[in-house]
Amino acid sequence: MTDTSDDIPGIGQYDDFHTIDWQRDIARDRMRHRYIVKKRQDSFWDLLKGAHDAWSGWVCVLLVGLFTGCVAGVIDIGASWMTDLKFGICPQAFWLNREQCCWSSNETSFDSGNCSQWYAWSEIFTSSREGFGAYVISYFFYIMWAMLFALLAASLVRMFAPYACGSGIPEIKTILSGFIIRSYLGKWTLIIKSVGIMLSVSAGLSLGKEGPMVHIASCIGNILSYLFPKYGRNEAKKREILSAAAAAGVSVAFGAPIGGVLFSLEEVSYYFPLKTLWRSFFCALIAAFILRSINPFGNEHSVLFYVEYNKPWIFFELVPFIGLGIIGGFIATFFIKANLWWCRFRKYSKLGQYPVTEVLIVTFITAVIAYPNPYTRMNTSELIYLLFSQCGISNQDPLCDYNRNFTDVNSAIEIAAAGPGVHKAVWLLILALAMKLVMTIFTFGMKVPCGLFIPSLALGAITGRVVGIGMEQLAYNYPKIWIFSGECSTGDDCITPGLYAMVGAAAVLGGVTRMTVSLVVIMFELTGGVRYIVPLMAAAMASKWVGDALGRQGIYDAHIALNGYPFLDSKDEFQHTTLAADVMQPKRNETLAVITQDSMTVDDIETLLKETEHNGYPVVVSKENQYLVGFVLRRDLNLALANARRIIDGITGQSLVIFTSAQPVQNLGPSPLKLKKILDMAPITVTDQTPMETVVDMFRKLGLRQTLVTHNGRLLGVITKKDVLRHVKQMDNEDPNTVLFN
Amino acid sequence: MTDTSDDIPGIGQYDDFHTIDWQRDIARDRMRHRYIVKKRQDSFWDLLKGAHDAWSGWVCVLLVGLFTGCVAGVIDIGASWMTDLKFGICPQAFWLNREQCCWSSNETSFDSGNCSQWYAWSEIFTSSREGFGAYVISYFFYIMWAMLFALLAASLVRMFAPYACGSGIPEIKTILSGFIIRSYLGKWTLIIKSVGIMLSVSAGLSLGKEGPMVHIASCIGNILSYLFPKYGRNEAKKREILSAAAAAGVSVAFGAPIGGVLFSLEEVSYYFPLKTLWRSFFCALIAAFILRSINPFGNEHSVLFYVEYNKPWIFFELVPFIGLGIIGGFIATFFIKANLWWCRFRKYSKLGQYPVTEVLIVTFITAVIAYPNPYTRMNTSELIYLLFSQCGISNQDPLCDYNRNFTDVNSAIEIAAAGPGVHKAVWLLILALAMKLVMTIFTFGMKVPCGLFIPSLALGAITGRVVGIGMEQLAYNYPKIWIFSGECSTGDDCITPGLYAMVGAAAVLGGVTRMTVSLVVIMFELTGGVRYIVPLMAAAMASKWVGDALGRQGIYDAHIALNGYPFLDSKDEFQHTTLAADVMQPKRNETLAVITQDSMTVDDIETLLKETEHNGYPVVVSKENQYLVGFVLRRDLNLALANARRIIDGITGQSLVIFTSAQPVQNLGPSPLKLKKILDMAPITVTDQTPMETVVDMFRKLGLRQTLVTHNGRLLGVITKKDVLRHVKQMDNEDPNTVLFN
Repeated sequence: MTDTSDDIPGIGQYDDFHTIDWQRDIARDRMRHRYIVKKRQDSFWDLLKGAHDAWSGWVCVLLVGLFTGCVAGVIDIGASWMTDLKFGICPQAFWLNREQCCWSSNETSFDSGNCSQWYAWSEIFTSSREGFGAYVISYFFYIMWAMLFALLAASLVRMFAPYACGSGIPEIKTILSGFIIRSYLGKWTLIIKSVGIMLSVSAGLSLGKEGPMVHIASCIGNILSYLFPKYGRNEAKKREILSAAAAAGVSVAFGAPIGGVLFSLEEVSYYFPLKTLWRSFFCALIAAFILRSINPFGNEHSVLFYVEYNKPWIFFELVPFIGLGIIGGFIATFFIKANLWWCRFRKYSKLGQYPVTEVLIVTFITAVIAYPNPYTRMNTSELIYLLFSQCGISNQDPLCDYNRNFTDVNSAIEIAAAGPGVHKAVWLLILALAMKLVMTIFTFGMKVPCGLFIPSLALGAITGRVVGIGMEQLAYNYPKIWIFSGECSTGDDCITPGLYAMVGAAAVLGGVTRMTVSLVVIMFELTGGVRYIVPLMAAAMASKWVGDALGRQGIYDAHIALNGYPFLDSKDEFQHTTLAADVMQPKRNETLAVITQDSMTVDDIETLLKETEHNGYPVVVSKENQYLVGFVLRRDLNLALANARRIIDGITGQSLVIFTSAQPVQNLGPSPLKLKKILDMAPITVTDQTPMETVVDMFRKLGLRQTLVTHNGRLLGVITKKDVLRHVKQMDNEDPNTVLFN
Repeated sequence: MTDTSDDIPGIGQYDDFHTIDWQRDIARDRMRHRYIVKKRQDSFWDLLKGAHDAWSGWVCVLLVGLFTGCVAGVIDIGASWMTDLKFGICPQAFWLNREQCCWSSNETSFDSGNCSQWYAWSEIFTSSREGFGAYVISYFFYIMWAMLFALLAASLVRMFAPYACGSGIPEIKTILSGFIIRSYLGKWTLIIKSVGIMLSVSAGLSLGKEGPMVHIASCIGNILSYLFPKYGRNEAKKREILSAAAAAGVSVAFGAPIGGVLFSLEEVSYYFPLKTLWRSFFCALIAAFILRSINPFGNEHSVLFYVEYNKPWIFFELVPFIGLGIIGGFIATFFIKANLWWCRFRKYSKLGQYPVTEVLIVTFITAVIAYPNPYTRMNTSELIYLLFSQCGISNQDPLCDYNRNFTDVNSAIEIAAAGPGVHKAVWLLILALAMKLVMTIFTFGMKVPCGLFIPSLALGAITGRVVGIGMEQLAYNYPKIWIFSGECSTGDDCITPGLYAMVGAAAVLGGVTRMTVSLVVIMFELTGGVRYIVPLMAAAMASKWVGDALGRQGIYDAHIALNGYPFLDSKDEFQHTTLAADVMQPKRNETLAVITQDSMTVDDIETLLKETEHNGYPVVVSKENQYLVGFVLRRDLNLALANARRIIDGITGQSLVIFTSAQPVQNLGPSPLKLKKILDMAPITVTDQTPMETVVDMFRKLGLRQTLVTHNGRLLGVITKKDVLRHVKQMDNEDPNTVLFN
């Protein structure tokens, strides 16, 4: 923290797979800031530089928002085109998807999928859409395209950017908590993930593009932050941009800027000063605004699953809503446990060596099972939209085959008995639920970009819709029982199955990710259903509690633990009574590797560096009086010694290394090497009697990399972040050796 | 932090006007929690107690939400009734306000204020509504009622609850940052503030009930927390409930649960763990739900200023929106500076001794000026609603006197020239703006409950509406200039003056309070205008930047500084290069008051306690070797000594006080007093070379009360929160002696 620590090149940087020191980075930034403020008076050019520095945060998030919006637009358009390519083509203009193709035909048809401009593959080859032959050809093309897309996606990931697989959220959580994973947010990851997610969504796999969108936005944030040295060169400051980018990612994924910011705050970010909140909101809003201007879906509504209904819900309905929450919690827990079991199997078996083959097999099975069932054949987003919406006169889906007579478009929709179409649809939906649940378990964790939001929403929406139809028929058949008496006796449609689908979707997603406020806000922004905050909240709470009771971790935390990332969760409370003395290194009978302030030679220190592997060494008064003077990092020491040997004359192995400003007493040997400037004179210390809960708290809140343990002023040992993580694992009866990296 | 510190009664409590020690309180709570978890296996009763403990947080916020919703409903109904009482009465049922009275009459009239059931005061006395005599009588009754209400409000506050005045938000911020102000959140404050805010709103003063609603909710939170010892007996935990209550307060004030939570997070709270976020949201939602069920306004819309329009805004309009933001920033800064000047004058002059007289004078002037102008005569909320809304066929206000012919209710509203009514209305609005600005400056800070949200919104809404009408007429007169060419050339109403009012309101409120995300979310929930997030955000940003450039502090922070509350702002960054050594006490040439671990007698310590006034004393190895052993609080020491003298035999003034577990060497004197259990063995220490920015960070993030400064293990001094606050003031060139309390 001395003001010349930037003199030696490389000081202040970190190695790959290392933890950053937040205090140090923030101190460096403040120093840089003070320097600029001081210089500002000197000349107009410096004033401009100062202004640029003050603005750079805003400019950077503006750019991040712009690019994120554009990339999201491209991905949406591309994925939609390729998804439709599985079914057919627009011969007049092959670059149009089905909907756009049908617009150009000027036909007005309720069923937008079947205009004459759009040719299904069967039509091209047999000139027919109906019949067994056409079905087989369509089936074949569906599988073929799916396999082709999946092959491309998996190969691209394998060849160019291994980090582009998965949803990326566990890794981003880890990175934001202060860990370095080089090139995880690099340009290749960005490109391959963007292309890969289009391909893997189009392949019809049971995955969504929302989680990867967060990763893509974070890549954009990381790349753009290098344009602004304030952020690019300071890992702690860079995380402010990354938090904003994550918010922008969710914002474009769901069209939910407020939800995005809360997601970033609640789920992803670690260090979130309030200044960042405002900037993240700005970033999220710009991204959503750009995406809306691009308008990839070509519709007027700014929200993804806009629901038109605005009916009040009956107070009694809270019971089925909470029931849906409980069911959602069970489904989510089953999913997490099964998925983890499979991922662990993949990790420790030979399967892990054949990622492309695995993707192809899963794609093949998914495609074969999915095609016959119309609800799995269609795009998952479309399915969710269908399940959320209310049956109106224009809805031709079997799901809306009620025995009712529409006399007028504007007439009120009356409650009615379900027709045979609804019965069939319910069975197909239950099949779709089972199939999606099983396939998602095998899909999430494969080596293609894949997100979890949309599959979770779909699972919940199916469950909810089925329950909702059940409730509706109950109300139709028994309108007189007291629970319905108030609202349903008038004959109006008092139960909205679409609302149940919405609530169910929130429940499963909440159970899987353990999001809370951000989930409710995202659902509310996603559907525009202002009235339904209370039902959504009730279901989300029930689901979270069931999930927490059955298994402690959400899917992201579980994957963090599976991969052994050094993530110190800021939500978990440390419940044990251990003291700092129990955790510190070295244990009894070992000696602590220390450096004395003025009695070790260059050779001594180089020997110490060779013999030990610590990332830093405490500096003490003397071996006999181990009173703490400061702390020096291995990396800085290495650089400084190499630098000194190269530049300064008269430095030999016998030169004393001096960390004080006082002159050494004896002047016989070679001239001493003064390294006070790389010494951190303000290391954070705790006493050996400090409870570990306080120590964990300090690690979290101050973003420490290590702390020194003293007793009555005397240095006893060191606690690093890794020691803390191992200790937490140990106390939770887990294997402490699963914590990887430093 | 030893596990028997609860043995001696009173230990763990705080004196009035003292700072709490978060670490200690949270440690105490964890200990209590562990004890309950351990006991849970013992018996079914203990299991029940454990379950109760686990649930108590949720039950408590549920109750807070319920009560807050009910109290808010009562206040809304009461204030609305009393406001209408100034104008007339419903003779058939005097407890009805004008709107309810007119409902019962079954008349269908567009102008709801003039049904035959409702008698204006002039009608009762002169049987006429028109004419000079009627006007004078109405004027007289208006002033009379206003004076009566104001007198009541001021007297109640003066007699029963002096803390019930003002908005309460600065004090709640201070309390949440870890400061004790006894009875600030007590039952008397609750009752008097609830009654007082009804009265002062009804008195027609330029104030709102939204800020006080936060204070009222916090009182409810504080009172209910005593039902749950987990929260009532632990000041740090209690603040979790208070944060949730503050969110509920904003939620009921604006019908904005999400905005309320963000307000609590961004503006009010200090320590906000994520668990609290979810609980606060629950609390805010319950409160809003209850208030909506009570439905005090009797309308269908759940939002206060619901806007019906949903028109797109033109991209060019961002220029006037940002302009409004800049104007809003200027208005807000002028308001803050003028209000502060007046409050300082009140504080240091004789005026402060006559609070009731001051209130009466201001009420009289307000009433006299307000009555002649219809826009100041009406309720401020109604004014804001009117300014936000779009002119439709049913709107009879002069503000909507455009030269247009409505042929049909459903026909599109065309852009039209302003009629004479609009011109007159604009002048009246400008007068109203000047009057409200001046009166609010004198009103805010008086000794009645008064909030600032509604006056700020009104100031901004007036400015915005005037600018909006100007833009509209510009577009009408020059529809061909390029900026309007896209949208306005078709003759449609392309400019919505109501939207300008909304944006202006956000700008002034943002400038006054310096809220950001929460402001935008509140405005969006308040009006239901999903489309207008971008304009709102642009204006809020511009306003905040102008405000920050002209004056550093928002109104709440300015009032905190004015009152000298010990509030360490978590948003300000500490920019200076001082070190811990520069701030610590004692300064050079003074000696540090320390206690040795095993060589001081009871008399020595009692002398020390008498001669010094510190809140705590470091315990060191010996006077010669000042190596730190621990820290002991004055309060605990006093209690322990008094307790020992009372209970333990053989304790005399000559007894040694021993803070170690080892036996003392000499055994000649009276039996020693062992006080290890009140010794905090884990005080937080920093080195003397630690930059103050790190120290300030530690105080904020860890919620410290003091930290000990060491050099090479040797104790040098102490830094308390007060030292930090004084130092911050000093570095900002302010008078450090304005920081009051400990």
